Amino acid sequence: MATSQRTRSWWGWGWEQEALTDDECRAYGAMMPGLSANPLPVPAVADLGLVPPRLTAPATLAGVVTDEPAERASHTYGKAYRDVIRALRGEMATPPDLVARPRSEAQVIDVLDWAAAVGAAVVPFGGGSSVVGGVSCGGEGFTGVVSLDVTALDRVLEVDTTSRAARVQAGVLGPHLEDQLRPMGLTLRHFPQSFEFSSLGGWLATRAGGHYATGPTHIDDFVESMRVVTPSGVSESWRLPGSGAGPSPDRLFLGSEGTLGVITEAWMRLQERPRFRASASVSFDHRDAAFEAVREIAQSGLNPANCRLLDPGEAGLSGASSDGSWVLVLAAESHHHEVTGDMDVLVEVARSHGGNVRPAREKAADAWRSSFLRMPYLRDAMARMGAVVETFETALTWDRLPDLHRAITTELAEVVQTVTGQPGLINCRFTHVYPDGAAPYYTVIAAGRPGSEVAMWDDIKVAAMEILTAHRATVTHHHAVGRDHRLGYDRQRPEPFARALVAVKNALDPTGMLNPGVLIPSRGGEL
Amino acid sequence: MATSQRTRSWWGWGWEQEALTDDECRAYGAMMPGLSANPLPVPAVADLGLVPPRLTAPATLAGVVTDEPAERASHTYGKAYRDVIRALRGEMATPPDLVARPRSEAQVIDVLDWAAAVGAAVVPFGGGSSVVGGVSCGGEGFTGVVSLDVTALDRVLEVDTTSRAARVQAGVLGPHLEDQLRPMGLTLRHFPQSFEFSSLGGWLATRAGGHYATGPTHIDDFVESMRVVTPSGVSESWRLPGSGAGPSPDRLFLGSEGTLGVITEAWMRLQERPRFRASASVSFDHRDAAFEAVREIAQSGLNPANCRLLDPGEAGLSGASSDGSWVLVLAAESHHHEVTGDMDVLVEVARSHGGNVRPAREKAADAWRSSFLRMPYLRDAMARMGAVVETFETALTWDRLPDLHRAITTELAEVVQTVTGQPGLINCRFTHVYPDGAAPYYTVIAAGRPGSEVAMWDDIKVAAMEILTAHRATVTHHHAVGRDHRLGYDRQRPEPFARALVAVKNALDPTGMLNPGVLIPSRGGEL
Repeated sequence: MATSQRTRSWWGWGWEQEALTDDECRAYGAMMPGLSANPLPVPAVADLGLVPPRLTAPATLAGVVTDEPAERASHTYGKAYRDVIRALRGEMATPPDLVARPRSEAQVIDVLDWAAAVGAAVVPFGGGSSVVGGVSCGGEGFTGVVSLDVTALDRVLEVDTTSRAARVQAGVLGPHLEDQLRPMGLTLRHFPQSFEFSSLGGWLATRAGGHYATGPTHIDDFVESMRVVTPSGVSESWRLPGSGAGPSPDRLFLGSEGTLGVITEAWMRLQERPRFRASASVSFDHRDAAFEAVREIAQSGLNPANCRLLDPGEAGLSGASSDGSWVLVLAAESHHHEVTGDMDVLVEVARSHGGNVRPAREKAADAWRSSFLRMPYLRDAMARMGAVVETFETALTWDRLPDLHRAITTELAEVVQTVTGQPGLINCRFTHVYPDGAAPYYTVIAAGRPGSEVAMWDDIKVAAMEILTAHRATVTHHHAVGRDHRLGYDRQRPEPFARALVAVKNALDPTGMLNPGVLIPSRGGEL
Repeated sequence: MATSQRTRSWWGWGWEQEALTDDECRAYGAMMPGLSANPLPVPAVADLGLVPPRLTAPATLAGVVTDEPAERASHTYGKAYRDVIRALRGEMATPPDLVARPRSEAQVIDVLDWAAAVGAAVVPFGGGSSVVGGVSCGGEGFTGVVSLDVTALDRVLEVDTTSRAARVQAGVLGPHLEDQLRPMGLTLRHFPQSFEFSSLGGWLATRAGGHYATGPTHIDDFVESMRVVTPSGVSESWRLPGSGAGPSPDRLFLGSEGTLGVITEAWMRLQERPRFRASASVSFDHRDAAFEAVREIAQSGLNPANCRLLDPGEAGLSGASSDGSWVLVLAAESHHHEVTGDMDVLVEVARSHGGNVRPAREKAADAWRSSFLRMPYLRDAMARMGAVVETFETALTWDRLPDLHRAITTELAEVVQTVTGQPGLINCRFTHVYPDGAAPYYTVIAAGRPGSEVAMWDDIKVAAMEILTAHRATVTHHHAVGRDHRLGYDRQRPEPFARALVAVKNALDPTGMLNPGVLIPSRGGEL
């Protein structure tokens, strides 16, 4: 299907035309007992009956700001399970009053200035793929809410092929960014699962994790400098490969989730496109052996591009394996030199821990990768069929991993059973591994009670956060904090740091207008 | 010489017993025209006539706090050239009034509480190796100054061999840290030039760079969590291999240079000790070819342990080469697997840019490494003989490197000539290389006029900072900001970030008692 014919879904993941049909939903839903016979219908925007906007844009912002219902509806939520369900049920009580689409940084400033003047809150919006309530704002204490959609700022402005870096506008989505870099043979090589529908600015604001399992894969490490429009001035750091001059300015804005400023540009470190590749997949009969193999690989210094461990459930769903084994998908790549030697070492490590190397023709890596990008659409289908279906991710050190994994697969499984009244599925994969730990990513699927799905998931999510906190595993490895992770985040961040962050907020955004309620309490809230 | 017989120099680098003798100073000084016939004498502490302390420690801190002249003298300055000269000339106008040596975190808190109560400033002090005025404080606006020497907090408290991490007290110096890790086969693998005389807490507070030229070599990347005593409470982050939960708390304290709190402990990521090694050295006739070879290696993804480029002057002084060529010292190492394949690729890259691979027996790498640790002692000898001798370092992207290097070797050379009245030496090496740039490190040596050495260096330093600023090269890559780099730093950091940092300072250290004047203005100062 040609790009020009596709439209973005206002309620669910990605392209409207890629969503599963009602018949496909039924077929998919039939695989799990206890789901509905028919999918939840998708309401028409015209039938949503959105509350009238509380704000009116001034004439000076004509052509930049709109109050069209379709725009307001599609900027009401991110793409978490609870967002999708509420949209499908027409629970749209807090749409933004206006949606702004600046086409220049000057217009970003104009929107902020006007919003400040009229007492409105502003929610920076990139691809809108937040799964943590990062772009949903009721605007309590403000005269209204403006969703500031920066996706028209989508150009690569400058490329330094010598240093392999580019100055990029923050609203660009993944594919369009890569399209602009490809003619130079360069790539950002940052491929989060949301790649198609998330923006550079969103990646920076949420400290996104890329697809690559080891080594530099977090967006944090690819930043040379950032340009951020704050309510009290523009902050621009110097392009530097490294610096020891005080605490890093960029690291303060990385992860600030739109609360301190609107990221408008960044100089990003690029890489040459890989030319040499090798891959393998290895199965393990036992979890402990798989964990140990992955740990040795993570500590070997080889930094494979992929090192993704799938539990039997995850391996089955993705087609990587159906025999109940754990599957480790390995890949090495380089633009510069052959990597078969690296792959030989990696495979040998896996073998030494009892791994069975799969024949190359089984293509577990390909099977897994193609299902990877399709997963969010399947999630939407399952949601429409009445399943409670959501993911959460964390990271912790190797010494604590087995205990946490046991707690999730037993304690949380009991919670799922109690909340939903029947056993659900909890699958696990490792999205990233480090010398000192791993980032397990859990998918929960259970049958929900129509009308109570969001409450059921919220109960499960609170229990999951309790378990993570008890094991001192991070409340989020790469999904960000937003509004939905505040409970766990407030326990995790050191108290003096929380006060420091509030002080920074007050210094840069004195009226608290930027994304209120994310990371820190809204204006007037207590720590 | 046995460790127990050695004493630390109060005025110069390292061990008193390792300093060059007067005869050695004369011999060394004779290599440069225009220096003195005899070395500056080293005054006795008893002859310094330090001003009486303005503070008296309470009985509750007996055994923790001292006003002994030798302690006050050795905590007056760091080890910059200007510090050494001022100490040798007996210019000791601003010694700390008291030196505290807490033996527990509780005592750190006691000292801070008492200092806050009496209105004293506190200067956190680790190894005291600052070369940027990071530990020298007059205490204007305070009742006095306490130097808080944390080197009695020197133990490894806990080791997690599974995750390869250790909980370490921040006052430990490099060798004692490695001694405690060695029995487990582990190492922090962080070897700054100051290794023997700098502390973990100092490395963290100044974002130190290790000896290794590429890949993870900055202390920032080895931090799992930190514990920091601030005047308004203890901040402790969770041990995590990675996290996307808001801006990184650790990254706010990394580089804070003692202005936000006293780092007392950190969980540090360790590595197994390397078993496989390979090295080579390569000479280049032309600078541009050397730059291009290093750039290709830095962008190859091979991350060699060493990739140090020496200009002809640096190569000559260190004994790596005497034929006027540029020398590239390469090394690869691993605890896990053979690295000869990597070295073959590295050497081939160097050859493809016209490099001449040196026979292994020439041992340029060894020659360079042994002179590396000796350099600060030689610096002191030259200083005593009347040379203006100091280093500065920076980092910038590859595209701007040739222009900056030309400016330093021409414009700054002119400044040296103007200030000192004769041509000086300006040598260069790369301490670290990145895919997107390099960190050149410059050594300036010129004959000084007795009595005016500090003023002469200050003039040269200001000119160097002007050149760095003009090229948007960082004012410091790994030496920190302290008081001496404020001019360049104030131009470099984004203005909104400066305001954010002041806000954090006010939140965590409301009276401004911690290391006033470093990074940001002292209490009451304007931004």
